[in-house]
Amino acid sequence: MGPHPAVAAIRLAVRRVLHDVLTDLTDRPAGRRGPAATGGTPPLVLVACSGGADSMALASALAFEAPKLGIRSGGITVDHGLQAGSDLRAAEVVTRMTALRLDPVESVSVRVGRDGGPEAAARDARYAALDAAADRLGAAAVLLGHTRDDQAETVLLGLARGSGTRSLSGMAEVSGGPGRSHRYRRPFLQIDRQTARKACMVQSLPVWDDPHNIDPAYTRSRLRHEGLPALEKALGKGVVEALARTAQLSRDDADALDSWAAEAETGVRDEDGRLECAKLYALPPAVRRRVLRRAVVAAGSPAGSLFARHIEEVDRLITGWRGQGAINLPGRVEAQRQGGRLVIRQG
Amino acid sequence: MGPHPAVAAIRLAVRRVLHDVLTDLTDRPAGRRGPAATGGTPPLVLVACSGGADSMALASALAFEAPKLGIRSGGITVDHGLQAGSDLRAAEVVTRMTALRLDPVESVSVRVGRDGGPEAAARDARYAALDAAADRLGAAAVLLGHTRDDQAETVLLGLARGSGTRSLSGMAEVSGGPGRSHRYRRPFLQIDRQTARKACMVQSLPVWDDPHNIDPAYTRSRLRHEGLPALEKALGKGVVEALARTAQLSRDDADALDSWAAEAETGVRDEDGRLECAKLYALPPAVRRRVLRRAVVAAGSPAGSLFARHIEEVDRLITGWRGQGAINLPGRVEAQRQGGRLVIRQG
Repeated sequence: MGPHPAVAAIRLAVRRVLHDVLTDLTDRPAGRRGPAATGGTPPLVLVACSGGADSMALASALAFEAPKLGIRSGGITVDHGLQAGSDLRAAEVVTRMTALRLDPVESVSVRVGRDGGPEAAARDARYAALDAAADRLGAAAVLLGHTRDDQAETVLLGLARGSGTRSLSGMAEVSGGPGRSHRYRRPFLQIDRQTARKACMVQSLPVWDDPHNIDPAYTRSRLRHEGLPALEKALGKGVVEALARTAQLSRDDADALDSWAAEAETGVRDEDGRLECAKLYALPPAVRRRVLRRAVVAAGSPAGSLFARHIEEVDRLITGWRGQGAINLPGRVEAQRQGGRLVIRQG
Repeated sequence: MGPHPAVAAIRLAVRRVLHDVLTDLTDRPAGRRGPAATGGTPPLVLVACSGGADSMALASALAFEAPKLGIRSGGITVDHGLQAGSDLRAAEVVTRMTALRLDPVESVSVRVGRDGGPEAAARDARYAALDAAADRLGAAAVLLGHTRDDQAETVLLGLARGSGTRSLSGMAEVSGGPGRSHRYRRPFLQIDRQTARKACMVQSLPVWDDPHNIDPAYTRSRLRHEGLPALEKALGKGVVEALARTAQLSRDDADALDSWAAEAETGVRDEDGRLECAKLYALPPAVRRRVLRRAVVAAGSPAGSLFARHIEEVDRLITGWRGQGAINLPGRVEAQRQGGRLVIRQG
């Protein structure tokens, strides 16, 4: 008799990702392989584990699959220090991960700042800690327990920003910072939360419910407990799956359009490198707006502060020209039209 | 003293669209102008009016703006025959439109079928009746009262289908059937429902609340009264605006990618017109999937029955080839890989 279907599902998802990690290590140029792949030591894959059902299920599947592929598996838990007793909880998660025979297992403490609101600040601190631990331990990858339900919530959060296809593309299966573009992997983006929970139950794994997950002060929590259920009631049970599929399709669409814009950008500049309005006008609006966005960011505008309405205003210098003056953009960047050219520069 | 801001807003929106209608009539080749533009008669613009606040506001703005631009304005109300007394109500709407000095004003009765569910069937019957009336009266355009709130709901309905960027693009500002591509205009897509309601109130226009709008048997009604409010509660008041902006951005993205796919399609065929798998493989996934979709529809698969999962399966013949057999698609269309070529045909 094989494992319970929920356990089989989480293991299969992890096995696929571990295969990708190995392929990636083999394909990478020797100079960039990092310590784990260069010596005789087997590569190390870490799981980021909060002790909640999703990441405990992930830890269990990693512990089961990694040895079969000659991979060492370890775990990190991050103590955000936001509740009393969070250190005890982190120690308990370390114990649970050790019980799964993950090795090394570490708890790392972080100080959460305030930039961008409580959720963003916690996330930034968490990824910085995970990055540091992965660097220190020479890990080939860090697995994250985000499920299809998390993905659906992320798409809705992106929808609320109203900034288009890229913001609807949710979390990537593979991501990472500069020079670490394949570090983070999300094996559970096609697995629903219920399956992860079930897999913990049938494996008798104790799980911890993150109090943030039910705190209505957090947007994501409100979305999870009120927004999404109401949407499901109105639109039917397939909403979560539809949102997750939207993420994938949107990501591919945004990638294709970004590559088009990158290519188009060289063609719309004159010999002095200035943007020609007539050539910009001839581009499809979706491509033109992306070219403009690239140019504004290149001039020094922070990407995170640049909204669709800013780009629309710059676009009107091309499509609705009636002698308007310079447009002020985030990061003291100015855009103005001069003699059929678009001049974008920092003031 | 000028009009109330709500009245000013709806009139401005209608004035802009009437300008577009006139521009369009002037640009159109003489042979295709239709009766209204060829003779000395001023062009006729109709409003489709249910008697609800949105379309009554639209009717009032049309009646006010049209004469100033030398346009005749008329109104059509559709009696769906779905409730007892709907004929009396239609007669009342005719009286109200006449009171606004619209002329001609007509009530047309339709029989609603059952295809595609109650909402789709009512919509199909309504547009068929509006098309027939517009043809008979030689109208240059038919204005529809859809607001920004309707647009937001349409985006969420598209999201629930999970079929990507095109399905998130909501309703077009300008649309129409074959040969009538500019017939329908939606001046209120940037106007919120509250503004339309306010404009009726300050103009002392009686309005009728459509019982369908509050019937929870209708998906859109559930979305309006439960889904969207819950989403606003979780994500903040800007959700409707964000959804409407998503519609516009998604429409532009989908248009650009469709044009790319149309162009790419010619480049991936061999000299016998067959699709070459190697060339398809080299396209960005978003473009490749659109090329495949075009080819499957061209082979006879009905576009409305063709879902993202069908195209994904065909795509795996290119990206995940391991000798799989022919794939069955809606409309008895089959796709299979043969000697490095993709063969798509109706069985």
